[in-house]
Amino acid sequence: MAQTQARTMPGVLELLPREQIAFQRMLDVIARNYRLFGFLPIETPVMEFSQVLLTKSGGETERQVYFVQSTGALEKDGQPELALRFDLTVPLARYVAEHERELSFPFRRYQIQRVYRGERAQRGRFREFYQCDIDVIGKDHLSTRYDAEIPAVIHSVFRELAIGPFTIQLNHRKLMRGFFEGLGIADGEQQMLVLREVDKLDKRGADAVRATLTGEGFGLAEDVVAKILQFVQVRSTSLADAVDKLDALGAGSDTFEQGRDELKQVLTMVRDLGVPENRFALNLSIARGLDYYTGMVYETTLDEHPEIGSICSGGRYDNLAGQYTKSHLPGVGISIGATRLFWQLREAGLIATADSTVQALVTQMDEAHLADYLALANELRAGGIATETVMEGGKLGKQFKYADRAGIRFVLVLGDEELAKGTVTVKDMRRNDQFEVKREELIKALRVELEQAAVMPVARD
Amino acid sequence: MAQTQARTMPGVLELLPREQIAFQRMLDVIARNYRLFGFLPIETPVMEFSQVLLTKSGGETERQVYFVQSTGALEKDGQPELALRFDLTVPLARYVAEHERELSFPFRRYQIQRVYRGERAQRGRFREFYQCDIDVIGKDHLSTRYDAEIPAVIHSVFRELAIGPFTIQLNHRKLMRGFFEGLGIADGEQQMLVLREVDKLDKRGADAVRATLTGEGFGLAEDVVAKILQFVQVRSTSLADAVDKLDALGAGSDTFEQGRDELKQVLTMVRDLGVPENRFALNLSIARGLDYYTGMVYETTLDEHPEIGSICSGGRYDNLAGQYTKSHLPGVGISIGATRLFWQLREAGLIATADSTVQALVTQMDEAHLADYLALANELRAGGIATETVMEGGKLGKQFKYADRAGIRFVLVLGDEELAKGTVTVKDMRRNDQFEVKREELIKALRVELEQAAVMPVARD
Repeated sequence: MAQTQARTMPGVLELLPREQIAFQRMLDVIARNYRLFGFLPIETPVMEFSQVLLTKSGGETERQVYFVQSTGALEKDGQPELALRFDLTVPLARYVAEHERELSFPFRRYQIQRVYRGERAQRGRFREFYQCDIDVIGKDHLSTRYDAEIPAVIHSVFRELAIGPFTIQLNHRKLMRGFFEGLGIADGEQQMLVLREVDKLDKRGADAVRATLTGEGFGLAEDVVAKILQFVQVRSTSLADAVDKLDALGAGSDTFEQGRDELKQVLTMVRDLGVPENRFALNLSIARGLDYYTGMVYETTLDEHPEIGSICSGGRYDNLAGQYTKSHLPGVGISIGATRLFWQLREAGLIATADSTVQALVTQMDEAHLADYLALANELRAGGIATETVMEGGKLGKQFKYADRAGIRFVLVLGDEELAKGTVTVKDMRRNDQFEVKREELIKALRVELEQAAVMPVARD
Repeated sequence: MAQTQARTMPGVLELLPREQIAFQRMLDVIARNYRLFGFLPIETPVMEFSQVLLTKSGGETERQVYFVQSTGALEKDGQPELALRFDLTVPLARYVAEHERELSFPFRRYQIQRVYRGERAQRGRFREFYQCDIDVIGKDHLSTRYDAEIPAVIHSVFRELAIGPFTIQLNHRKLMRGFFEGLGIADGEQQMLVLREVDKLDKRGADAVRATLTGEGFGLAEDVVAKILQFVQVRSTSLADAVDKLDALGAGSDTFEQGRDELKQVLTMVRDLGVPENRFALNLSIARGLDYYTGMVYETTLDEHPEIGSICSGGRYDNLAGQYTKSHLPGVGISIGATRLFWQLREAGLIATADSTVQALVTQMDEAHLADYLALANELRAGGIATETVMEGGKLGKQFKYADRAGIRFVLVLGDEELAKGTVTVKDMRRNDQFEVKREELIKALRVELEQAAVMPVARD
């Protein structure tokens, strides 16, 4: 038969089973913590009507969209009616607007699905990747208190993921806006441009940003730029320090004061929610590229891997779904780009290949005893232990080797002797240990071992 | 702002949160049982190269494919290079061929992802739907013993789903083929056409099928058709009955005898694997529409809802990935179409809306105690209880109503009195019961209740 080369498109992360297991565990930790904080699951179709998907977005997004056409539509040569979602926010807006009457507000949803962007193929850039989002959507209004829950969720997720110490960094768009207004940069458009430059501080360095801001395009005075750079370099080391540094900024416009008040309130509540003070900090340089944040903004970085950048970002927005409904729907949320995070953690050596989901392998010594092996596998499964049975024998050594390579922890041997005595010989591949156990005590023995292994190491705060 | 109508494309099943929770539980049960039997998870990208996806398929599939183009590719007006997967079998074939050297064989994988078909929009027909597949792939050969594991997995899944009594129906393509050869219908093409007609037996009835087969197109003799219809009406009521009925078929060709031997071996092993004899049966009418099955074929039906048709189907095939690799890769597998199944079960009233994933709601009586409410929520979450906190108070009655509508089981009240006594008042919304418990005993008390509720009703065999 003429053969086609078996290959995936570039820009996707396709994993081998044991990598997939490690990735799935990461998603499970994220989902479990989202649920723990009272967020409800939803899923939306991978496709939306192009018209729905592209109402708001600018040219950049549109250039990255994947359009979808059925064969029939292709033949008609029309403009594509459908497109793949490029984030989970637009589908959420559409979902909330479509099902508004059937939802309770504040609506707390989590969503863990893949999104699609026609990025230029490049190492570490993905065209298909998981986003793990939470949002709380209010109807007409949403208390700032919800903004304080977000860092508590972030803390809970990354503590359990145990990928090292991290810092949740907080800022407020109104504080920033008020500050700029105080410097005479009152035009929103101009503020946004300055914010975008300031956002590049870490990447380009202070000198380059200063040069741009005093240069032709912006034409800001030296002392104004100095104040801006001083402002954006504010970081706090504790809650008290954050409050002090906020107070030290001096008086400002109403917008400025509102931002400062909300920041203080949120920071205090984050502490009340049990987040250790070394896990969150004021960082007045956080602006977030997106234009739609209007209040709190969040970024999270790994203390020992700043090169990875923000691993979880988000913020408060004024109105989620203005393009679909007249209802005013303010919200606050964050997103974890799980595919990129997993890839980066693997690159940084912070994630190991997981053990198999298969916990026990029932070996085959003698074909004549196959029914006994199957019965043993049944017992194990009934006891909740994921079990594979060797269906075609061969040398026992080879069966052990298979288990070892596959990452299966327990290899069970049921020979004539064991059958006569009513026992099973267990080889623990992890501990390189071997023991014989009575058949009726087998499940309990394996469970104890497996439960000990399942206790995840929790990073110290 | 000019508004766009918020709507999803037709042919998708978008769920409200509590329906999503019920659906997710169904997927979880399926995945857990797949893992229990030693299958490993993989995921493949939603898109494949069109060339890879469409190597084998005929016109029918091609007409239903969704093609994908990035904006850049659209502008170039070329033929679409990418398409959405229409099943999980072709991506599996590509995956195994691409990663062949990195996989251990027999390769046991499960895959639970959505697939896409440009079906005509119709009630109960989906353009996006979940498939939940398992396959065991051998290298060069794969023992028939693996074919016997498949019904054991099916039994385990549907017993735990507890959607009523079911029967796993088995047949063998070689038995069928040998039988037809014995009747002088030796041409493979012709057999396939007859099998397709026979496959319509349940839908069209015996008379219509007989008319077609004796009619112009087929021109079979009356007695040949009578034998065919007698053959396909064979059903067994127990393992012994199945063996008797197979023996009663009389001698046949090598192909026929091979099919009969394998069927007997598989049926016996299915029993050895602990599947009760009333849960599996020989059904010589099962042909499966697909051309690539070459050995065992499986269908599963709900005894009390035959109108739903097969809820889980599959079989044995000779060579998975001949279009991508020279390796000979025989396999056996099944697929559960979870979206359609969920929809049908809901239509039949067999699935109820789930309780919320939120297990406890901390109410707000007095804003001044907010920090106490947050601390209580922290304690609950640390104890593994999914908890939502009321952030903006209002009447307590309203907060209870919210919990009731949202399907949250426990509503917690922490008033002045409770704070003074170190207790919490718990309202159990399910039992319509209320009790006061010491703060330090709260988590244990709720856990006991929740664990009792989590014990799923298991259908009797």
